Amino acid sequence: MQMAESNCLSPDWDLPAGEAFLQNVFGIIMEEAVRKGTDTSEKVCEWKEPEELKKLLDLELRSHGEKQEQILDRCRTIIQYSVKTCHPRFFNQLFSGLDPHALAGRIITESLNTSQYTYEIAPVFVLMEEEVLKKLRALVGWSSGDGVFCPGGSISNMYALNLARYQRYPDCKQRGLRALPPLAIFTTQESHYSVQKGAAFLGMGTDSIRLVKADDRGRMIPEDLEKQINQAEAEAAWGGSVLLSQTHRHLLDGIERADSVSWNPHKLLATGLQCSALLLRDTSNLLKHCHGAQATYLFQQDKFYDVSLDTGDKVVQCGRRVDCLKLWLMWKALGGSGLEQRVDWAFTLTRYLVEKMKLQKGFELVMEPEFVNVCFWYVPPSLRGQEDSADYCMKLAKVAPLLKERMVKKGSMMVGYQPHRSWPNFFRLIVANPALSMADLDFFLDELELLGQDL
Amino acid sequence: MQMAESNCLSPDWDLPAGEAFLQNVFGIIMEEAVRKGTDTSEKVCEWKEPEELKKLLDLELRSHGEKQEQILDRCRTIIQYSVKTCHPRFFNQLFSGLDPHALAGRIITESLNTSQYTYEIAPVFVLMEEEVLKKLRALVGWSSGDGVFCPGGSISNMYALNLARYQRYPDCKQRGLRALPPLAIFTTQESHYSVQKGAAFLGMGTDSIRLVKADDRGRMIPEDLEKQINQAEAEAAWGGSVLLSQTHRHLLDGIERADSVSWNPHKLLATGLQCSALLLRDTSNLLKHCHGAQATYLFQQDKFYDVSLDTGDKVVQCGRRVDCLKLWLMWKALGGSGLEQRVDWAFTLTRYLVEKMKLQKGFELVMEPEFVNVCFWYVPPSLRGQEDSADYCMKLAKVAPLLKERMVKKGSMMVGYQPHRSWPNFFRLIVANPALSMADLDFFLDELELLGQDL
Repeated sequence: MQMAESNCLSPDWDLPAGEAFLQNVFGIIMEEAVRKGTDTSEKVCEWKEPEELKKLLDLELRSHGEKQEQILDRCRTIIQYSVKTCHPRFFNQLFSGLDPHALAGRIITESLNTSQYTYEIAPVFVLMEEEVLKKLRALVGWSSGDGVFCPGGSISNMYALNLARYQRYPDCKQRGLRALPPLAIFTTQESHYSVQKGAAFLGMGTDSIRLVKADDRGRMIPEDLEKQINQAEAEAAWGGSVLLSQTHRHLLDGIERADSVSWNPHKLLATGLQCSALLLRDTSNLLKHCHGAQATYLFQQDKFYDVSLDTGDKVVQCGRRVDCLKLWLMWKALGGSGLEQRVDWAFTLTRYLVEKMKLQKGFELVMEPEFVNVCFWYVPPSLRGQEDSADYCMKLAKVAPLLKERMVKKGSMMVGYQPHRSWPNFFRLIVANPALSMADLDFFLDELELLGQDL
Repeated sequence: MQMAESNCLSPDWDLPAGEAFLQNVFGIIMEEAVRKGTDTSEKVCEWKEPEELKKLLDLELRSHGEKQEQILDRCRTIIQYSVKTCHPRFFNQLFSGLDPHALAGRIITESLNTSQYTYEIAPVFVLMEEEVLKKLRALVGWSSGDGVFCPGGSISNMYALNLARYQRYPDCKQRGLRALPPLAIFTTQESHYSVQKGAAFLGMGTDSIRLVKADDRGRMIPEDLEKQINQAEAEAAWGGSVLLSQTHRHLLDGIERADSVSWNPHKLLATGLQCSALLLRDTSNLLKHCHGAQATYLFQQDKFYDVSLDTGDKVVQCGRRVDCLKLWLMWKALGGSGLEQRVDWAFTLTRYLVEKMKLQKGFELVMEPEFVNVCFWYVPPSLRGQEDSADYCMKLAKVAPLLKERMVKKGSMMVGYQPHRSWPNFFRLIVANPALSMADLDFFLDELELLGQDL
């Protein structure tokens, strides 16, 4: 590091030291993140108040560098205080779980560090993305079409909105929304909040959203949809993986009639963040027409290979991460049948949990689950049988936040809660982690009882 | 994999096998991607035509899964045919190079697999992002402000545009662009194409872009900017890292007067894709006001900790990758002084290359470089001294594509080319890889001579 600038060798390059460092880091990851992070005898999180955590982390970026041993200590500390989303008791989000093949795909992606935008610098991944998208489209029921991996489901949904308005009004790209008649977005009250964010970001405004009535399960009621819309609303993105299951794919019957489908394999399939595909039935090259800007310094037309392989002009980003490898590698390892088994297992576990809840005092379902999320209230002993009292709902609303605090500070498990419509705070458990066993769900119920027994 | 569904254990979970698999994958990565991928005696790419590569990769996703040994072979094949962007002879893009600390940060990020949106599930990274953004803002010259890591510089630029219009016309979020007077985006012909993509995506239309004249170096000519704009155009994002160098930061003099700065450490600092910060001088919580949708199921207000730590409502995405760790870990390891040395070294090498080019026949600079990109023509022997002939430019335009084809098929190096304004195709070499030595640049010049000697 102290070599003179006049030296002809790079001043900070020491590959053997770098390799030894990476070997050590990998060892730490295997022990602290993979082994302990999935071990039910270890905590799912190690709660610290922000000020205390800041001190433990020593976050300040200084002028001098640190020795490798110190950096390795920092890696251990970072993992120690991070939430273990792969842990079988992490029920908090849709992306729980660790698939070693998908993780391998992610680490290879990071090591190769390329951008998905041209065949020139991403030959393997351009072809692989094409194949993965084709497979996903086939599961939707389309024999042709287009698509692209996006930075998350919200951006996928914005893409779908932007493509819909461009298809109907191509002028929009050049002349903007002011040149167009007023546009409306038809969706339900129950749709994902990315529709709202997208309406604002795309310049349409949230007022352009027309809410269509939905039934108790959030399905749009067709009779209430007065005007037909050209664009099919993007499906709720995490349900897509159910298409892999012969037993359960009927839940998405009719999906093949949509014009676009947003599908996040990083949720139910546990590929890891992010893996979000936007699938299109379109075969007119709508993506490139709508998003293209023909930057000559990236997308030269006089290249020595077929430049239609370059995907860069399909997206509004410039550089784009490789998101297909983790899914592809996992699929190769497990096969479609292995993935199907995984989806079916999630349904089996959900059913097991729901039946247990029905038999156990203090658990009340918000509704009978149709998918792998279970919404329920935990009613503590003092509130049981008090459903008719005036302040029941107000008291019940305080239970979930309190139990959440207790479980997080103990580190025993994590599960989300939320209010919805007029319903007070309820828990929302997601059965997605492929490592989950029935014993983990037994633990979940027992632990809630334990945490709430004095309430 | 063949266990009955009725069994209480997950059907596809075998952690010891998964760990052994990951150990093997890591060994392959170290050998094939890290060691060979940075070894100048190895090829920078192994060119295959798309049809041939498809056969080699066997991309089809089938119903049955494959044995781990076969999956490991696939990992080797994927790395083998991928472009080695860390290789010292990869001059093709801005993100060349491998920093072991940043790679460690990326692998830890992938292993922990969390989303940046709440303190609840990303306590370490919420605090770390805050600290990293604060440091970057300080380098810009701001003692307060806001910011967020975005999925790439193009999206950062769109954020900046969206925030600017929201700040001036908060109505836009709800009522859309049709309720507003016509808006204009002032930029130069030389600005990044994401401004065009953003104008279209945000519903303003590319017609709303007013081009301001620029000088030869692409700097806006203030006298030509008739109307003052409230929003400072985002800086060309890859130059931000020059702020780390005492010697060279004068190149961005005045940047502290901007309202927003988009900075991609994944370029000159080699953190790996993606690491793109949008920095704001704003202290009024503009990001949350502009992008917030208050999704109750993610951003509960009755949590047991300070919910202002949750960053999810600052962005238009829902899930958001952790992009701060790779930069933070590298900074801790090298220190600000090590990063400064890296930036200075890139300038030293650029100067070395330029002086050598001036002494060597057949190399002609498009202009004297001000930064670390060198734009030049390679003029082959048959064209030397023919500058006045009528078809000189037409012939010269064909040189770069042909040499590019030859170097890629040989696998010896990669460098981009492009036309610009009335200039025919020229090469654009990026000096960014921290492992670069003067010998690599000598090789670069010799190799071009060798590839072009018969032209």
